[in-house]
Amino acid sequence: MTNVEIISIGNELLIGKTLNTNASWMAKRLTTLGLNVRRITTISDDVNEISTAVKEALERKPSFLITTGGLGPTFDDKTLAGIAKALNAPLELNKEAFKMIKEKYKTYAQERDLEKIELTPARVKMARLPKSAKPLPNPIGTAPGVIIKHRKATVVSLPGVPPEMETIFETSLEPMLKKRAGKATFLETSLGVSGMMESELAPIIDKVMHDNPYIYIKSHPRGQERIPHIELHLSTTSKDSATAKNRVSRTIIQITETIQAKGGKISRFKAEKAL
Amino acid sequence: MTNVEIISIGNELLIGKTLNTNASWMAKRLTTLGLNVRRITTISDDVNEISTAVKEALERKPSFLITTGGLGPTFDDKTLAGIAKALNAPLELNKEAFKMIKEKYKTYAQERDLEKIELTPARVKMARLPKSAKPLPNPIGTAPGVIIKHRKATVVSLPGVPPEMETIFETSLEPMLKKRAGKATFLETSLGVSGMMESELAPIIDKVMHDNPYIYIKSHPRGQERIPHIELHLSTTSKDSATAKNRVSRTIIQITETIQAKGGKISRFKAEKAL
Repeated sequence: MTNVEIISIGNELLIGKTLNTNASWMAKRLTTLGLNVRRITTISDDVNEISTAVKEALERKPSFLITTGGLGPTFDDKTLAGIAKALNAPLELNKEAFKMIKEKYKTYAQERDLEKIELTPARVKMARLPKSAKPLPNPIGTAPGVIIKHRKATVVSLPGVPPEMETIFETSLEPMLKKRAGKATFLETSLGVSGMMESELAPIIDKVMHDNPYIYIKSHPRGQERIPHIELHLSTTSKDSATAKNRVSRTIIQITETIQAKGGKISRFKAEKAL
Repeated sequence: MTNVEIISIGNELLIGKTLNTNASWMAKRLTTLGLNVRRITTISDDVNEISTAVKEALERKPSFLITTGGLGPTFDDKTLAGIAKALNAPLELNKEAFKMIKEKYKTYAQERDLEKIELTPARVKMARLPKSAKPLPNPIGTAPGVIIKHRKATVVSLPGVPPEMETIFETSLEPMLKKRAGKATFLETSLGVSGMMESELAPIIDKVMHDNPYIYIKSHPRGQERIPHIELHLSTTSKDSATAKNRVSRTIIQITETIQAKGGKISRFKAEKAL
């Protein structure tokens, strides 16, 4: 399995102002691509916090470390300074990134009928990347994404504005991730169970998981223990699509039979996603 | 400032199946109470991951460490085993918790017209707490919350089912947190700015934050850099409510004047929350 860690940067996440939809969106994409998201860490706009979290994550040796947020022009956009500190790779003006930024403001000036928009320090800041980093084009915003290799890990920084993050992820990152994951396939499906408490299901899940070691089964109570309605979520990441399908089908049959034999009802079978 | 860390436990969060609304809900509540959420860590249902994350968090010496998820009856509810490992406080049957669980199943049996519901190992598991921990009543679900003091930190485990988490937070935890925070007050408000790019605002924010060191100002682009519409979010945690209000009012006046002098428009003033 190819391990990935996500670091979400932004005070707004820690004060509960903004729901961390970026991490969730990326986690789903990465899992779907056959990669394993091992940890998501949310920290504030603070150089030391960022640097510490990046160093800690890299010590766990993920193949990819992806950060979101903190790439813009304001003082509190500190992601690159934090990464520079963590990797001991000082910030320097990156020519390619500077060209991207210059082009952006040239376009913005034209759109606004201005002769030019001055490249103030706040704007140039977005082109100051850690040494040996490369910019990733931002087709719909200003600040480029950033990619930097560090030993066996690839560190990628994406903006926090969701459409910009998603676009750079899809255009620059996804092809690389796909290549790395190869044919690895994630498959998930859900069964609805009624007429049994979660605590009654527990030993059944134990047994079925023991017999199907590559399938992860998780029960999600959707009612209450007293009026139970449970979503049984089955998932696997297998070496290829055929293996994943075989494993999931076999497990569905076994668990359905066992639950029905114990008086439970498979009340709904909702294939949430078959990828 | 009283520091708090949150650890969210559950594979469903790392595969992007479930959005981490629990962490966001708690972060907002904790911030509103005057506490400082320093980090949110999301990890899988794995004893070693949980134990490692708990140990790492405690090394940063938060006053409170709150976990959500993994308290139920199934094999993948591993939070207490992880905490037991981290704190070197072995799991043992907690009499008070056992009584709570026994009462729950007695009620469930009555509701279902059964003579009794057997206390299977899966059910008793919810009453096996780390040594010296205390259970927190769960008024609407089965598994109790858990609280345990560790040196100067208080470690609290809440269920992952949102209404259960919220209810235990409000009934058992909030009074304790309020006491700890004292009169500390969090105040936030937002200004809408149009007619200026975020990169033009950057030096203004710098100057105003320099003059108002207790106010944190963060710009959130709501349009694009090219068609800018920016939310300026001002927040502070001050020693009391009057101080917080004074500081925020003074900052609003200064930043409004500066932006208008530079040709920007305060297009909307939306007090998101004045607490």
